[in-house]
Amino acid sequence: IPEVVWGPGKSADQIAMKLMSLTERQRVAIAARIDPATYSAVRMHAPGVEYNARARTLKLKSATAEQLPKPRRLPGSVAIVSADTADQAIAEEVRVLSDYMGAYSFQIRDVGAANLHGLLANVASLRAADVVVVVAGTDCALPSLVAGITQSPVIAVPTSAGFGAALAGMAPLLASLSTNTPGITLCNIDNGFGAAAMAVRILKMAARLHVVRSAAEAAAEAAVAAMHALDSARSASSPSEN
Amino acid sequence: IPEVVWGPGKSADQIAMKLMSLTERQRVAIAARIDPATYSAVRMHAPGVEYNARARTLKLKSATAEQLPKPRRLPGSVAIVSADTADQAIAEEVRVLSDYMGAYSFQIRDVGAANLHGLLANVASLRAADVVVVVAGTDCALPSLVAGITQSPVIAVPTSAGFGAALAGMAPLLASLSTNTPGITLCNIDNGFGAAAMAVRILKMAARLHVVRSAAEAAAEAAVAAMHALDSARSASSPSEN
Amino acid sequence: IPEVVWGPGKSADQIAMKLMSLTERQRVAIAARIDPATYSAVRMHAPGVEYNARARTLKLKSATAEQLPKPRRLPGSVAIVSADTADQAIAEEVRVLSDYMGAYSFQIRDVGAANLHGLLANVASLRAADVVVVVAGTDCALPSLVAGITQSPVIAVPTSAGFGAALAGMAPLLASLSTNTPGITLCNIDNGFGAAAMAVRILKMAARLHVVRSAAEAAAEAAVAAMHALDSARSASSPSEN
Amino acid sequence: IPEVVWGPGKSADQIAMKLMSLTERQRVAIAARIDPATYSAVRMHAPGVEYNARARTLKLKSATAEQLPKPRRLPGSVAIVSADTADQAIAEEVRVLSDYMGAYSFQIRDVGAANLHGLLANVASLRAADVVVVVAGTDCALPSLVAGITQSPVIAVPTSAGFGAALAGMAPLLASLSTNTPGITLCNIDNGFGAAAMAVRILKMAARLHVVRSAAEAAAEAAVAAMHALDSARSASSPSEN
Amino acid sequence: IPEVVWGPGKSADQIAMKLMSLTERQRVAIAARIDPATYSAVRMHAPGVEYNARARTLKLKSATAEQLPKPRRLPGSVAIVSADTADQAIAEEVRVLSDYMGAYSFQIRDVGAANLHGLLANVASLRAADVVVVVAGTDCALPSLVAGITQSPVIAVPTSAGFGAALAGMAPLLASLSTNTPGITLCNIDNGFGAAAMAVRILKMAARLHVVRSAAEAAAEAAVAAMHALDSARSASSPSEN
Amino acid sequence: IPEVVWGPGKSADQIAMKLMSLTERQRVAIAARIDPATYSAVRMHAPGVEYNARARTLKLKSATAEQLPKPRRLPGSVAIVSADTADQAIAEEVRVLSDYMGAYSFQIRDVGAANLHGLLANVASLRAADVVVVVAGTDCALPSLVAGITQSPVIAVPTSAGFGAALAGMAPLLASLSTNTPGITLCNIDNGFGAAAMAVRILKMAARLHVVRSAAEAAAEAAVAAMHALDSARSASSPSEN
Amino acid sequence: IPEVVWGPGKSADQIAMKLMSLTERQRVAIAARIDPATYSAVRMHAPGVEYNARARTLKLKSATAEQLPKPRRLPGSVAIVSADTADQAIAEEVRVLSDYMGAYSFQIRDVGAANLHGLLANVASLRAADVVVVVAGTDCALPSLVAGITQSPVIAVPTSAGFGAALAGMAPLLASLSTNTPGITLCNIDNGFGAAAMAVRILKMAARLHVVRSAAEAAAEAAVAAMHALDSARSASSPSEN
Amino acid sequence: IPEVVWGPGKSADQIAMKLMSLTERQRVAIAARIDPATYSAVRMHAPGVEYNARARTLKLKSATAEQLPKPRRLPGSVAIVSADTADQAIAEEVRVLSDYMGAYSFQIRDVGAANLHGLLANVASLRAADVVVVVAGTDCALPSLVAGITQSPVIAVPTSAGFGAALAGMAPLLASLSTNTPGITLCNIDNGFGAAAMAVRILKMAARLHVVRSAAEAAAEAAVAAMHALDSARSASSPSEN
Repeated sequence: IPEVVWGPGKSADQIAMKLMSLTERQRVAIAARIDPATYSAVRMHAPGVEYNARARTLKLKSATAEQLPKPRRLPGSVAIVSADTADQAIAEEVRVLSDYMGAYSFQIRDVGAANLHGLLANVASLRAADVVVVVAGTDCALPSLVAGITQSPVIAVPTSAGFGAALAGMAPLLASLSTNTPGITLCNIDNGFGAAAMAVRILKMAARLHVVRSAAEAAAEAAVAAMHALDSARSASSPSEN
Repeated sequence: IPEVVWGPGKSADQIAMKLMSLTERQRVAIAARIDPATYSAVRMHAPGVEYNARARTLKLKSATAEQLPKPRRLPGSVAIVSADTADQAIAEEVRVLSDYMGAYSFQIRDVGAANLHGLLANVASLRAADVVVVVAGTDCALPSLVAGITQSPVIAVPTSAGFGAALAGMAPLLASLSTNTPGITLCNIDNGFGAAAMAVRILKMAARLHVVRSAAEAAAEAAVAAMHALDSARSASSPSEN
Repeated sequence: IPEVVWGPGKSADQIAMKLMSLTERQRVAIAARIDPATYSAVRMHAPGVEYNARARTLKLKSATAEQLPKPRRLPGSVAIVSADTADQAIAEEVRVLSDYMGAYSFQIRDVGAANLHGLLANVASLRAADVVVVVAGTDCALPSLVAGITQSPVIAVPTSAGFGAALAGMAPLLASLSTNTPGITLCNIDNGFGAAAMAVRILKMAARLHVVRSAAEAAAEAAVAAMHALDSARSASSPSEN
Repeated sequence: IPEVVWGPGKSADQIAMKLMSLTERQRVAIAARIDPATYSAVRMHAPGVEYNARARTLKLKSATAEQLPKPRRLPGSVAIVSADTADQAIAEEVRVLSDYMGAYSFQIRDVGAANLHGLLANVASLRAADVVVVVAGTDCALPSLVAGITQSPVIAVPTSAGFGAALAGMAPLLASLSTNTPGITLCNIDNGFGAAAMAVRILKMAARLHVVRSAAEAAAEAAVAAMHALDSARSASSPSEN
Repeated sequence: IPEVVWGPGKSADQIAMKLMSLTERQRVAIAARIDPATYSAVRMHAPGVEYNARARTLKLKSATAEQLPKPRRLPGSVAIVSADTADQAIAEEVRVLSDYMGAYSFQIRDVGAANLHGLLANVASLRAADVVVVVAGTDCALPSLVAGITQSPVIAVPTSAGFGAALAGMAPLLASLSTNTPGITLCNIDNGFGAAAMAVRILKMAARLHVVRSAAEAAAEAAVAAMHALDSARSASSPSEN
Repeated sequence: IPEVVWGPGKSADQIAMKLMSLTERQRVAIAARIDPATYSAVRMHAPGVEYNARARTLKLKSATAEQLPKPRRLPGSVAIVSADTADQAIAEEVRVLSDYMGAYSFQIRDVGAANLHGLLANVASLRAADVVVVVAGTDCALPSLVAGITQSPVIAVPTSAGFGAALAGMAPLLASLSTNTPGITLCNIDNGFGAAAMAVRILKMAARLHVVRSAAEAAAEAAVAAMHALDSARSASSPSEN
Repeated sequence: IPEVVWGPGKSADQIAMKLMSLTERQRVAIAARIDPATYSAVRMHAPGVEYNARARTLKLKSATAEQLPKPRRLPGSVAIVSADTADQAIAEEVRVLSDYMGAYSFQIRDVGAANLHGLLANVASLRAADVVVVVAGTDCALPSLVAGITQSPVIAVPTSAGFGAALAGMAPLLASLSTNTPGITLCNIDNGFGAAAMAVRILKMAARLHVVRSAAEAAAEAAVAAMHALDSARSASSPSEN
Repeated sequence: IPEVVWGPGKSADQIAMKLMSLTERQRVAIAARIDPATYSAVRMHAPGVEYNARARTLKLKSATAEQLPKPRRLPGSVAIVSADTADQAIAEEVRVLSDYMGAYSFQIRDVGAANLHGLLANVASLRAADVVVVVAGTDCALPSLVAGITQSPVIAVPTSAGFGAALAGMAPLLASLSTNTPGITLCNIDNGFGAAAMAVRILKMAARLHVVRSAAEAAAEAAVAAMHALDSARSASSPSEN
């Protein structure tokens, strides 16, 4: 899983340095949770960086991208579900980072308890996703609603979008933890990176399991074929048994 | 609104005394939040009390019930929605107390985020209710889901049914407060009495408003009729105007 | 109930777009919780917006207002009670939004535990209101005081006006939830919009209930009249019974 | 101020020993916060103890009471105001302990936001008290209501009588701390002892201040009298000045 | 007790207006918790205001001060004890406001658990004070230390001066509430105004009690004198008794 | 995924009924979070239940097990890692329930920050697991330690095993949420059922993805083979091209 | 440092087993935090255990104690300071466990903010101690008071002895963390074992440092002596230099 | 231990004054927790101050440094371990202040649960340190990991570097307190000064203990030598004993 440079607590030149060092062996490197001022400062050190203001990510392409290995896309897909415009920054962070780490993802927006109609209209695509990330700060209902619709693993990212009793994200966090719908787990508040990393770990494990199983099945089939061949050979060499 | 005797913090004889004094002017009196041991103790002082173990309420009928005025049932209805078997005690408390305070109520059980199907099957009866009380301890999603379906006022009662991060009911409480679906208000944790009282206040206000409006409309109609009569009279008495 | 555009988490152009789209089918549209800087930015996209600095709301009138249906005012009234100058912004938000959603409202200011005299001077107007919204950040006593005076439903809006142990509004929130006066429910801290929406839901339900009851009563009266007519007819046709 | 034996954390024989040692120099000794089981155990060691089950206090009279100095009652009085039956144990603790420490006290019960009428009926006696202790667990309004009525110092004792969001007394505690009525200070939850001790400290200080002031005033009067006498003497001895 | 204008939540012109209206019947008026920017704005409306930057108070003198009654200073004194330079603003607020409300006060600074020596050096002046206000944000020990030294009532004002686990003042607040030294009560965090108001209420009550007692004692003395006179008269008129 | 009967909040006969109804279509049914007293009560209604005292689960075998379909075991494995003897009940709950829901699982016990040696000795088996569940109440370090060792998805279950500042499990919960090791998500405190359900959802998704991919690969191979065959056929049928 | 068997979360036979296994290589083994019921159960498996009811510890002596190495006592001493009778159990736990782990310790009891006199009477013995453990649940002042008196490292153990706002020990915990007296560190609430372990780690480090330093000094002295000897030898062998 | 000037809550001239007064008797004085703006202001009063922007400390050298006593370095060493770049400011604060207070210290950076390899590579230097300070805001695992590796006392400094559920440092604080690895104690969040002070107290105590022990050992050796000499003398004077 390619490394993500986490911005908070790092100076602009530390971020630039890290991105440049990563692009020596990767086609592209990404830094997360970068505010506009830090972007301006990083650009001084690494002029090629591109800023995604919504996801608050920085991207640096390698100068020698052509010689570097092309990363393989993981099998399976990640649905990123969100209810509120205010949760879009985190949803976008999940999308950019899971894409960077090799997963295919797509967004389902503006659905939830307050827009149940919209959610029901997306049941099919929701069920088609192999992992579902639910980003929700004020719609505490969304993670359990989604987990009731799909059988895939659901990762909830509570956000700090609410106010007052939302306690900067603690309310949706506690609510999702205490729901009685089994099969939901949580990341930290606003932790789109963590959700993307978990989704990628799951898909990667599935891919690995696939390779192992395919090999095992191939071996099993070969063994069966061999046994059959042996049986045929035996029967051929013992005509008297008939 | 008839008084409810609140049990916690009162001794058995205080409860019995209060119930008996209430039955001097009411056909029946009710005490709430009574555990089995208190019931046994109250029965020593007031042998006629009946115990509803699920709602944890005591009922005492007046000896002179026949002479006492029959309370009038309020217009409108209260739907009591709950998700979890563990929330049934509180839902039952809402039902018994709102009934006692004069409101017609009915329950919708075992619906919620984990049983969206069940909830959708009850949309019609939900929308028919004039006030909706949602009792939910682990399904933090239910109040906002219900508020998204009906246009009636929604009263949420968080319960202490969850465990761990549910923080004895604080998680569903904070979640319902921070939801972005407008038109939900909250009672204290496990406060079925408070929810029933609010529902009754709402229906009573509606009934009062009805009386006022009906009177106003009747007056308006009478005025119109009078004006028409006057017009007729005028036209009858002034044939020359044609 | 007409939609309110909730400002937080939306960009200025998203707010402007939403307001303009609403004015295609409404005479006026409103956005809530708008700070002065956002107002300036929205004005660039929708020059006609008007700003209410105290309520922090934006209003946009439709260009084709004359062709659009005039909304009907709901029967009944909402009293908005507040204790502290610091709570005025939220009280004003309740007023502007409940007005926009069709309810008649009026304010009672500077009353409370510290000014009990002022509160008692307003008992009559308080009791005349069909729904009471109490906005209180430092006077934790006000909601239960008001609920003790009126029999109408009381909606408390705790505010973040206090300091220190007020914990940004959690103290009045918890205090109102744990009061032993039945018939109070709560909104989130500073959630004037939520309180207005609940008040409007209540009044709307009362209006609907009125229509249903009036129809039912008219039907009942007609039935009685018909029965009487039938009786008269019967007695007329059977003179021998005398 | 006579010592109170605080029960929690002490064994029965430690409590008995302490009480008996106190009665060597006092006519009576008291232990606070004693549950019935501890009382039974203490009685084994000190058979003369008397138990006040409501205040949860133990009293031991000295065998040589007659020879011991009679404590003097402090000037002034303490009003103990409470709203809820469930707060009576703490109100009684305040009464018993302030009485033991030398203060005259009286109770005002069952008043509060939910019974404003009852509170207003007691305004005169409330204003007559020199110190007011307000014991309130669910009626978070009471301390500020009382402080708005009287000009005497108000000591609030939040109690753990509420449930759910009352957070075992933290809600009334935070509410009283954040009220905007000046002149209220707080004790710990259920700390009737602390409130009594503060009331006694206040009355004792007032008594001391009185002694000092009376002495000062007597001296001033004597000085004035002396000056007058001197003047008289002078005028007597100098008749020629006329 | 003269009114203090509380700044937070009020606009500059509201503050100016209030101060000017107070100076119509008082020689001087004071506003509390005023930041420098608000001071500048208030000065536009009321040019005569003086700013105390440390106490964050505004003072406005009446134009007609000479005609207004001179307030009387209360008997007794208030000691204001603080440990930390960071607590000085609040200590100064207590001093300015208690002075304004009529009490004599003096400060004891830089003492505490970390400077026990300094505290012990001030024992005499501490014991001489009739009310003690302890302002402490990081030295959670100070209120109980002081209460152990003096028998006068102790009012603790926790401050937000600490960091991290001080939780913006909640740590010293909880610590002072849970101390086992009886006779301490608390104000809200940083609430110098509340502490001053409580101190003044206490001293005022003591003054009133003094007047009452002096009158009672004078009456008693007069009665005794009268009785003696009567006795003398009796013995004079009945010489045969010898 | 087979249904688990969740015990808390259900009566013994409700649990028994539910188990018996499940065994009509499953070979075995399981109830979770059952204390010994409830087990005794359930046994009255369903005598065949077996109790696992460590995992606190009940198992009921179907009378007609032979006719019912044998559930298929999911591919892949779940490692259940725990540090403390006190966490064993929850670890066992994860094991029993994930086994029941079709997953192969194995335990790694007594490892952690305090026994780093033991953890390092298990690196190989840890890395071999496809999903890792970490059960930890006092060793807040374990989830991030494990996530640093394996690339598989890690599900943390904080437990209430600690004391004091562990705040009944909130400390390990918050610690795991705020860790900077990406790829960990959380369940509620003591929620072994939730962790097992998430692990099963992940393995099930992987199995489904495998089926889809195998089919896709088979189709692709067939297509390639067909193309080759076509090519061969083409080259065979067009000898003139040489 | 000899291992302590921590009781909570272990069954009686697990505790007995562990103790017996430890006594195979130690003269004595100890288990901590054992309630009386567990003691009775452990005694069934290991009849030789002795119970210290105050410290809640179990001690098992080895059958072959004579053949086992006698542990060496560490240089230096530990003072265990406590204020309140209710804190004695934890203070005793510190004493028993630090003694078992090889440290000499002594107790200073009943001192604190409420008994400053007692504390000052113990200044000499406090300063003589090399490590000071302060056990305090209600006297939040004690750790900083002690740290102001001694220059030795101070370890605070907050206890759950307080009530109400003490929040089961969180108040003294937060208070000690936020004190401005440098040189105090904390253990978990009621964690006497942790404090003893830290004290022993400190003394052990000091002992080790002593050995290293003594060796270094001896080497240095030897080197100096050798140099001097060399110098003498040189001067002896080179008389011509004079 | 030389005094550190703590910046927060002090004005620039108070800081400058304090530093200058300290340099009258010390070669160098240090102020901690100084932000850049305060540095600029202090420089106006004390031009010679040097600013360490990473540690946020100010240093002022004495003008008469040559005449002042040179402080002695304490025996032993302090390892400062940190995981995250974001924790470097606090780690640097520990380093600068412990150096100033006389201790030798060295840093181990970028190690932790997420970089276990790095930690294991530093085991030797970690074990060589006499006191270990662990600075960790997001890697809640680090303190217990380190305490499992070394036998020296471990002082944890939780930092506010995390986000969301890290609750500004409360999460690592609670986690370290509740860990089951004995021998860790804590400072306040971000309190590098406190950790340095504790480390210095420990090393100072060890140095003092060394002096005492060396003297005791020298005395003991001298006594032994004397006894031997006496024995020799005795045997020399009594040749007949052979």
